[in-house]
Amino acid sequence: MPAAKLDYAGLLRADLPPAAVKYAGFPKYNFVGGHNDAESVPVDGLRAAADAVLAREGRTLATYSLTSGPQGYLPLREFLVRKLKADAGIDCTADEILITGGSSQGMNLINELLIGPGDTAIIEQANYGGAITRLKRAKANIVAIPVDKDGMDVAALSKALDDLKAKGIRAKYIYTIPTVQNPTGTVMSEGRRREILALSAKHGVPIYEDDCYSDLTFSGVRPAAFYGLAGAGNNQVIHIGSFSKSIAPALRLGFLVASWPLMGQIIALKNDAGSGSLEQMVMAEYAAKHFDGHVKALRTRLKRKADVLVEAVSAEFGTAAEFDKPVGGIFLWIKLPDHVDTRQLFQAAAKAGVAINPGPEWAVGEDYSKSRLRLCFANPTEAQIREGVAVLADVCHKEFGVPLRGRNVGR
Amino acid sequence: MPAAKLDYAGLLRADLPPAAVKYAGFPKYNFVGGHNDAESVPVDGLRAAADAVLAREGRTLATYSLTSGPQGYLPLREFLVRKLKADAGIDCTADEILITGGSSQGMNLINELLIGPGDTAIIEQANYGGAITRLKRAKANIVAIPVDKDGMDVAALSKALDDLKAKGIRAKYIYTIPTVQNPTGTVMSEGRRREILALSAKHGVPIYEDDCYSDLTFSGVRPAAFYGLAGAGNNQVIHIGSFSKSIAPALRLGFLVASWPLMGQIIALKNDAGSGSLEQMVMAEYAAKHFDGHVKALRTRLKRKADVLVEAVSAEFGTAAEFDKPVGGIFLWIKLPDHVDTRQLFQAAAKAGVAINPGPEWAVGEDYSKSRLRLCFANPTEAQIREGVAVLADVCHKEFGVPLRGRNVGR
Repeated sequence: MPAAKLDYAGLLRADLPPAAVKYAGFPKYNFVGGHNDAESVPVDGLRAAADAVLAREGRTLATYSLTSGPQGYLPLREFLVRKLKADAGIDCTADEILITGGSSQGMNLINELLIGPGDTAIIEQANYGGAITRLKRAKANIVAIPVDKDGMDVAALSKALDDLKAKGIRAKYIYTIPTVQNPTGTVMSEGRRREILALSAKHGVPIYEDDCYSDLTFSGVRPAAFYGLAGAGNNQVIHIGSFSKSIAPALRLGFLVASWPLMGQIIALKNDAGSGSLEQMVMAEYAAKHFDGHVKALRTRLKRKADVLVEAVSAEFGTAAEFDKPVGGIFLWIKLPDHVDTRQLFQAAAKAGVAINPGPEWAVGEDYSKSRLRLCFANPTEAQIREGVAVLADVCHKEFGVPLRGRNVGR
Repeated sequence: MPAAKLDYAGLLRADLPPAAVKYAGFPKYNFVGGHNDAESVPVDGLRAAADAVLAREGRTLATYSLTSGPQGYLPLREFLVRKLKADAGIDCTADEILITGGSSQGMNLINELLIGPGDTAIIEQANYGGAITRLKRAKANIVAIPVDKDGMDVAALSKALDDLKAKGIRAKYIYTIPTVQNPTGTVMSEGRRREILALSAKHGVPIYEDDCYSDLTFSGVRPAAFYGLAGAGNNQVIHIGSFSKSIAPALRLGFLVASWPLMGQIIALKNDAGSGSLEQMVMAEYAAKHFDGHVKALRTRLKRKADVLVEAVSAEFGTAAEFDKPVGGIFLWIKLPDHVDTRQLFQAAAKAGVAINPGPEWAVGEDYSKSRLRLCFANPTEAQIREGVAVLADVCHKEFGVPLRGRNVGR
């Protein structure tokens, strides 16, 4: 009997995102995705941690959320209490931390808590693509604020809040990636953070702080987080972070910091019966001993790759590529000449085995985004970075006539 | 400076579920939740698996989804291809399997794919509480079909489909837990499965098959899954399953089986950047060698606990408690006399340290559910089962005058 084929017309919801295609492996030159440096994965440390924690507490895997409750493995939350205090100036308790499946789950929970159709979200103009697609899918009204080398433009934010107020609209949040902004790679000063906190308080609009790259400043120093500046027990800031960038992205571990009773509302929305416990156990065991040393070494390797990418882009694109040298993170945000459409470049580059993020996927506003692109540099090897940028420059020259000159003959 | 306190009235979405309270540990006698037998967690096997797979492939943690793409770690999907063929008669490829964060994520994805406000879902009257709450939150119209010792009542299903058709309504799915039904603990015969498949084809309504307890028939045998009976490549059935019940619930690993192009739509909805990869790697490594032997031993332990619970309930409640002896799984579904309101019993029992699932949380319809309750037996020890049931009988006697007599003096 052949398999029955139902007609799904009328069954599928009308507002589904575009269907995925079958996975065909990574491209040869992969400059997209928050992947990390494979050589830096602390394999031996994770092995030792897994063995120790399973031997000691493995039987607790028999209960959902181990014996720690829905907010996640308590030793991991206790590690974060210490880490967030030391690194980000955040004064919180383990009760104010929720372990999530990556910071992306934190993002989903915050949107589910606050954003309904037609609600207004204020975000940075250049932004994480997944933040933009989530808001569009939630049918939110997006208000985009320009960014500069110091992050979100405070004057523009103030004006946007005033304009909304004049229309009787209270935005649901101000979303910012202040420390190693995605995709610009900038770090917002403490002074600007305080100005934005004041605007948030004045307008009664919470700040949703995404600190998922904040461990990766190349200098190893960073300003206090918004959550820290707002003070212990505040409900002005909801903070999310991640171990994806500092340890390994395939371990799906992030966290959310919020005060009660807000936290109680957020927990109620997390209907996944807990985040993966083995990953939490291994991370807690590993991080308590090795986190700082590991991240210090990782920063050095990432800075080296950033230098290689900057050098390659400068050599291959010359003055056709404008960018601020990143001060941390894993990406470079590049402006090409105005006539370059990076969506077209994305298509042509893909055929040549080079994956890039076209600006319109990583920013709001056609004028701003059309000629920009993001290149991620943590995962490719140094040789792949150099070769891939050369191929990209060739493709760009063929499609758009720029760069006019470069290292290669015949362009 | 004291922390700023924003007023969240007008910020929070109007339709949020009730807020969670702070976790206070497990109750003394815990008869709720899909927890498992702690002594059965295969700690040594998991340790060996973690060490081996990390040593061999640990560096792949540097990329989201390792090198396997968004459907999950390929060796785990390949294990499932073999297992589903051998155990459930399902003929599928690794491309037709999506690894999920527990079967609960599969449930969310299927609802997101199909259920919008006002859509109709057909479900079994006695049901997993989380399935009911999810459908209510999605503002679905729930049509509940009675269940008997052989599972979903086919005549009632046929009539419900006809009634809907007369109203011009095509239900979005028929949701069933055919193999070790939750909470009744029954197994649907192959004959009834074929009848339901025929109704599904006739009405063009897909079957959503939840097989998450199907490894736990005490006999070790089970009928072919709906997905298997529908044939390779069918789009009539979407199948979900889990490792939560067979290995450990705190490992958040489930799976979804669906044919393409349906699978492409489902992948597009899974916006979590992949399920936890370490858990997938460890599970694949462990399961390929040890799954069958482990589950065989687990079934024996669970059957023993089921026997202890049945014996305790019979001894303490006598004829006041009616139930079918479960043929698998981890729960007992009990009917108490009509005047017993198990929501009130739930409250009184909680004060005495006994956690139960009141019927109205685990079934649809006040008349059917009011005097029923679910007791889960996998996690408590045999002594806790006996003591807890005795305490519950005391509480029930005090609240409702039943059971009239039992083992204890003075009731």
